[in-house]
Amino acid sequence: MVQLIECVPNISEGRRDDVVVAVREAALSASRGVLLLDSQSDRDHNRSVFTFLGDGPSLVAAMAAMVAEALARIDLRSHTGAHPRLGAVDVVPFVPLRGATQADCVALAKELGARIARENALPVYLYEDAAVSEERRNLSNVRKGEFEGLAKKMSDPGWKPDYGPSEPHPSGGATVVGARAFLVAYNVNLGTADLRIADRIAKAIRHIGGGYRYAKAMGVELTERGIVQVSINMTNFEKTPLHRVFETVRSEAERHGVPVVGSEIVGLVPQAALLSAAEHYLRLEADPRPQVVESRLLDVAFAQLEKKS
Amino acid sequence: MVQLIECVPNISEGRRDDVVVAVREAALSASRGVLLLDSQSDRDHNRSVFTFLGDGPSLVAAMAAMVAEALARIDLRSHTGAHPRLGAVDVVPFVPLRGATQADCVALAKELGARIARENALPVYLYEDAAVSEERRNLSNVRKGEFEGLAKKMSDPGWKPDYGPSEPHPSGGATVVGARAFLVAYNVNLGTADLRIADRIAKAIRHIGGGYRYAKAMGVELTERGIVQVSINMTNFEKTPLHRVFETVRSEAERHGVPVVGSEIVGLVPQAALLSAAEHYLRLEADPRPQVVESRLLDVAFAQLEKKS
Repeated sequence: MVQLIECVPNISEGRRDDVVVAVREAALSASRGVLLLDSQSDRDHNRSVFTFLGDGPSLVAAMAAMVAEALARIDLRSHTGAHPRLGAVDVVPFVPLRGATQADCVALAKELGARIARENALPVYLYEDAAVSEERRNLSNVRKGEFEGLAKKMSDPGWKPDYGPSEPHPSGGATVVGARAFLVAYNVNLGTADLRIADRIAKAIRHIGGGYRYAKAMGVELTERGIVQVSINMTNFEKTPLHRVFETVRSEAERHGVPVVGSEIVGLVPQAALLSAAEHYLRLEADPRPQVVESRLLDVAFAQLEKKS
Repeated sequence: MVQLIECVPNISEGRRDDVVVAVREAALSASRGVLLLDSQSDRDHNRSVFTFLGDGPSLVAAMAAMVAEALARIDLRSHTGAHPRLGAVDVVPFVPLRGATQADCVALAKELGARIARENALPVYLYEDAAVSEERRNLSNVRKGEFEGLAKKMSDPGWKPDYGPSEPHPSGGATVVGARAFLVAYNVNLGTADLRIADRIAKAIRHIGGGYRYAKAMGVELTERGIVQVSINMTNFEKTPLHRVFETVRSEAERHGVPVVGSEIVGLVPQAALLSAAEHYLRLEADPRPQVVESRLLDVAFAQLEKKS
């Protein structure tokens, strides 16, 4: 099976189109094994988010080229924008999609971190699953103080970077590199207008409330529809699957005499997150993924791409 | 969305590897938009089955080249094999996978049929969804009498071909071209050794017994496991979905006090067949297919392939 990893770099430029294009193209032309799935720029945030896909070595090569280009073109000393940021290339997470593990992505984060630090005299922090201490796991902790407070932050030995010099890159600040699971935004709608019920169920299923390890949740009012919603972030759908959370919401709602009227996935979702629901409910005796036509097709298409490039 | 159609030609050669390769390569080199997903040859049947994927025009071009090559290399007058066959290229079905309808595939079957008849003086029959009469819908009807009985069969005005001359191609016989839905082989295993229960449930769900329009089923003993199975052919999973049949099997089994211990999919299955089960059980308010990462990825990969070819 072809290895597929997602890499979602966030750069601190969302207004100058020529810069956004140059940075993006630097990644694409550095490696033939990398595909661009999505590209979004936000003028208010003055920030762009790219979704690249490829195998590990191709992504590392592409990101190294992208970082160099971004550092040459973006100067945070004159940067304004609504979104918090620490660097010209602010954050680079690797996400395993297929044929790759979380550990593979941690290794890629470390490889890329060491390389861009060395090649650009750039301080690099590792976060989430690649973090070397609990304190650095959470991105907002690492980014606290932002670019403007970075020199002061780095004077604290506790914030010595994982790679690179112990002071900020003059124009590029620092970059945060890491590995995380694919995040699925999943909402379950309840046939009631009583927000307290959604809140109570959210509390029951979320990790901090005693619920599932990889679920974050809160109650939300859908005022137009006159109903409420349990809004969930599934931070690891392999270990905490959608169908298990759905069944718990359903069971908790029933106890209040409230039906589940529907559910929705916001944004992209890996095929595997939905196939595991089918596998569960149809009581399939084997993981159906290897039998899915589209999976075979992806392998064939990528093999062709490699042959032609 | 990229249009993806499956085309599964069966040729009457499964022993001479050089011929199998030449015929297969004729298809692949005729069109850059065609991928080979699978290739299986059977010596006893003296027959090979290729699974090609591509958009409609690419597949028609590839199949036209393949038919010419097969007619030049295969002579049915000296062909023996266990599998019934009417022609050197025996049967060519088109199957819609994504971005294409059944009607698209019927149109392709007619286009290909007319073309190979004209280019090779070859009689062509249309079958299944492309059939012009009920009598020709069923492949075994069309193939009855085989190559050896074809001249006699064609002397009957009722068996005038849909395209081409009213007598067999001397060495190549006739070819049957058509369109059908993707066939999913799906089995549900019951926690009992009593075959009568599986038989009774099979009868309840299959079309001819009063059951679902697109289900064929029979009871089967799994002697090694000491259980029985309802073995099902889902001939149109869009209109008769897996989860509905599964739930009916479960409900009928319960009436006998028998549990469903598992189920299995044999061979390939389109992603959509399983996503619709997830959609049903998770009560999703929207079809999740456009949100699936792998679908986006296929589009990107195919766009790249077109650019590079």
